[in-house]
Amino acid sequence: MARSEDTITIGLLGAGNVGSLVARTLVEERDLISSRVGAPVRLAGVAVRDPEAPRDWKIPGELLTTDAEALVDQVDLVVELIGGDEPAGQLIERALRRGATVVTGNKALLASRGAELSAVAAESGAELRFEASVGGAIPILRPIQESLSGDRITKVMGIVNGTTNYILDQMDTTGAAFADSLTEAQKLGYAESDPTADIEGHDAAAKAAILGTLAFHAPFSIDDVYCQGITGVSQEDIEAASASGYVIKLLAIAEKESDSTGAVLRVHPTLLPRTHPLASVRGAFNAVFVVAENAGELMFYGQGAGGQPTSSAIMGDLVSAARRMHAPTPTATTVSSATELPPLSIERASTQYYIDMDVADREGVIAEIAQVLAANHVSIESMRQPGVVTVEGEIEDEPDNGAKVQIVTHLASERDLHATVEELRGLDVVKVVNSVLRVEVEK
Amino acid sequence: MARSEDTITIGLLGAGNVGSLVARTLVEERDLISSRVGAPVRLAGVAVRDPEAPRDWKIPGELLTTDAEALVDQVDLVVELIGGDEPAGQLIERALRRGATVVTGNKALLASRGAELSAVAAESGAELRFEASVGGAIPILRPIQESLSGDRITKVMGIVNGTTNYILDQMDTTGAAFADSLTEAQKLGYAESDPTADIEGHDAAAKAAILGTLAFHAPFSIDDVYCQGITGVSQEDIEAASASGYVIKLLAIAEKESDSTGAVLRVHPTLLPRTHPLASVRGAFNAVFVVAENAGELMFYGQGAGGQPTSSAIMGDLVSAARRMHAPTPTATTVSSATELPPLSIERASTQYYIDMDVADREGVIAEIAQVLAANHVSIESMRQPGVVTVEGEIEDEPDNGAKVQIVTHLASERDLHATVEELRGLDVVKVVNSVLRVEVEK
Repeated sequence: MARSEDTITIGLLGAGNVGSLVARTLVEERDLISSRVGAPVRLAGVAVRDPEAPRDWKIPGELLTTDAEALVDQVDLVVELIGGDEPAGQLIERALRRGATVVTGNKALLASRGAELSAVAAESGAELRFEASVGGAIPILRPIQESLSGDRITKVMGIVNGTTNYILDQMDTTGAAFADSLTEAQKLGYAESDPTADIEGHDAAAKAAILGTLAFHAPFSIDDVYCQGITGVSQEDIEAASASGYVIKLLAIAEKESDSTGAVLRVHPTLLPRTHPLASVRGAFNAVFVVAENAGELMFYGQGAGGQPTSSAIMGDLVSAARRMHAPTPTATTVSSATELPPLSIERASTQYYIDMDVADREGVIAEIAQVLAANHVSIESMRQPGVVTVEGEIEDEPDNGAKVQIVTHLASERDLHATVEELRGLDVVKVVNSVLRVEVEK
Repeated sequence: MARSEDTITIGLLGAGNVGSLVARTLVEERDLISSRVGAPVRLAGVAVRDPEAPRDWKIPGELLTTDAEALVDQVDLVVELIGGDEPAGQLIERALRRGATVVTGNKALLASRGAELSAVAAESGAELRFEASVGGAIPILRPIQESLSGDRITKVMGIVNGTTNYILDQMDTTGAAFADSLTEAQKLGYAESDPTADIEGHDAAAKAAILGTLAFHAPFSIDDVYCQGITGVSQEDIEAASASGYVIKLLAIAEKESDSTGAVLRVHPTLLPRTHPLASVRGAFNAVFVVAENAGELMFYGQGAGGQPTSSAIMGDLVSAARRMHAPTPTATTVSSATELPPLSIERASTQYYIDMDVADREGVIAEIAQVLAANHVSIESMRQPGVVTVEGEIEDEPDNGAKVQIVTHLASERDLHATVEELRGLDVVKVVNSVLRVEVEK
């Protein structure tokens, strides 16, 4: 595990769900990650308590070690995924004091000791990144720290806990009681067997402290956050809120006083108008709403938890921090890592088509049209005949004079769809193709 | 305009709507911006064609110059807000060759010469940032370049042109024809007198090229983008789409082939299911939807145009790029610039309350309750009496035995609201306060 001059060495602490994914990416996709960084990257070791424990991905034996401190002492970049206060806290501190970059998603630690650890990092010139600590895969901390660094943020308000959002959403959509929704969430793996940290709002409060610290450029800890969980929210509350046009969400809110004399940080169940952008954030998704003086209202939305989304955030911090070590500017890496990805003609796209036609109103028309689609390998998702229409200038009570057909196709190649439309235009029964529009659905 | 060793000097090219705002921020908020950067920042000059032209903010005369090249040659960081191809292009190139950082929002230039300018930057080690070129204030390029740098983006799909989104939204919600909606948009300043670049999709196509380049780490130009505008979209299309549960949006789409042999970039009117997160993006707002292998689906939403939002994006690039020049790590600046912003008790928050009570079913109850609120300076936004309820264990057909009152208050201090609830609990006519929940509305 020697450190070469050019290779950036990485030490991974912890190999649970997210840790295994990160290890796998660093080993199996080493070339991709190195090209993104602009310099070779090497996973130097993975510190675990039990090297024999079963894992989602089998980490090569030579990488495993139980000596976390020794690993921390010899790498350029430490990824901490142990979680909890200790030994995570002292290992992070040890790495930062050495000047090593640290990437972590440890929200509890950051919410209690974030200011202290940042001070250690500043002193030694080390970098501490923690995008994964709030909002899972959603890029929210970096936008606040960098993209909005020339603006004044006045409020941050987010759905930052997927467990409670799932429970409240279930109560809202199915009419289930709190206890039943919690049991359901536990069954689906959205809630832990001891759900206290989620349902009492502690997890959201930690995230509120992190968001407030970055948004207002002032250190806040979890102790500064007013915290009320969702255990007191009844089905009756949900129904009454709903009847008045509201939905109940657990929000983490950090808000600056209008006179800028301070900020209030709070987590509590909150009634939101159904028209509010956060109101439609369903299930285990997360979203953060940010208000800044010049930018106005912004919203960031995505998957707030889970191994893959969290590993995406960890890898993003890792790659961009590693870039800084070896590449002077982000521009350089963006361009020099350019892969061979040729632009293709739209004929190569796969889309759905919406086709609106005026057709002759007689038997067999639909069959003839359907045949054209089938012959071009295009299948039909839906077809509508919205009633008889008249050709301009003719009298409305001549019903056999024309009809309309609207088709939405399934996904097909643009080439096939194009050929289909050409052929439809040539049919005797098709008077005119009024519209051809593309359709995007969530795939 | 001499350059000192420690001060970062900034040269601004162009002083239109956005330029004036940026100049104003750099002059009036110099201390704030310097503290965010971690080093003193100074606006060294503003290059304009006509120093006498009237401007949104009166730029101090000694800053104005007509010699853009001389300005470019003596500053550390150039902000280009002239727009168009030339002289913007040669000035940016000149700055980059000197190794100066360039911040711009010039999407047309980037979409045609982006790869070439990035190569110049890479060669001299200069930084080129252009967050403002896509999505106005929405942080979208930096998240793609950095937060998602350890993931594989497969698709980017966005509403990136506010003019066309406003027009389509008007057609959808008011039933107006295309031409009338365009006239309306021009009247409100959402569309220019020559709206070609917007309505023919050229503006969106430039943004598609920029998004595709960053998402797929490969250079694309506007010539690689299939482009179809919205002039062919009729009110009949909108209605037919709506009848089938779709809404029509002009989307910029960059999608990688599943076998990664290439990417298709396209701009066209698109039918989206009304349930799609992009479907509810209204008026002149922008939103970008990103799909990545690990992160899953992400969405970024906000104001896509306008002076203030655009200046926020420009200032964010400026501050974060300037930080890099003098501060080794972002951690350092995040902490050292910590302002004095004390955490306040939730008693200092201003919120709305939802209060649900069981009350005695007799005359004067509402008056008594309203009096308590008034005495505590809390006004009522809405009050509901959802019908008679029974106290548990009692017989349902005794209607006078209890009633329910639900109140949503106006914004008031948490302290006053708290006192109100305490006093309500003490009233004889209030049997029990079932729920007290906070309400957030868009202020």
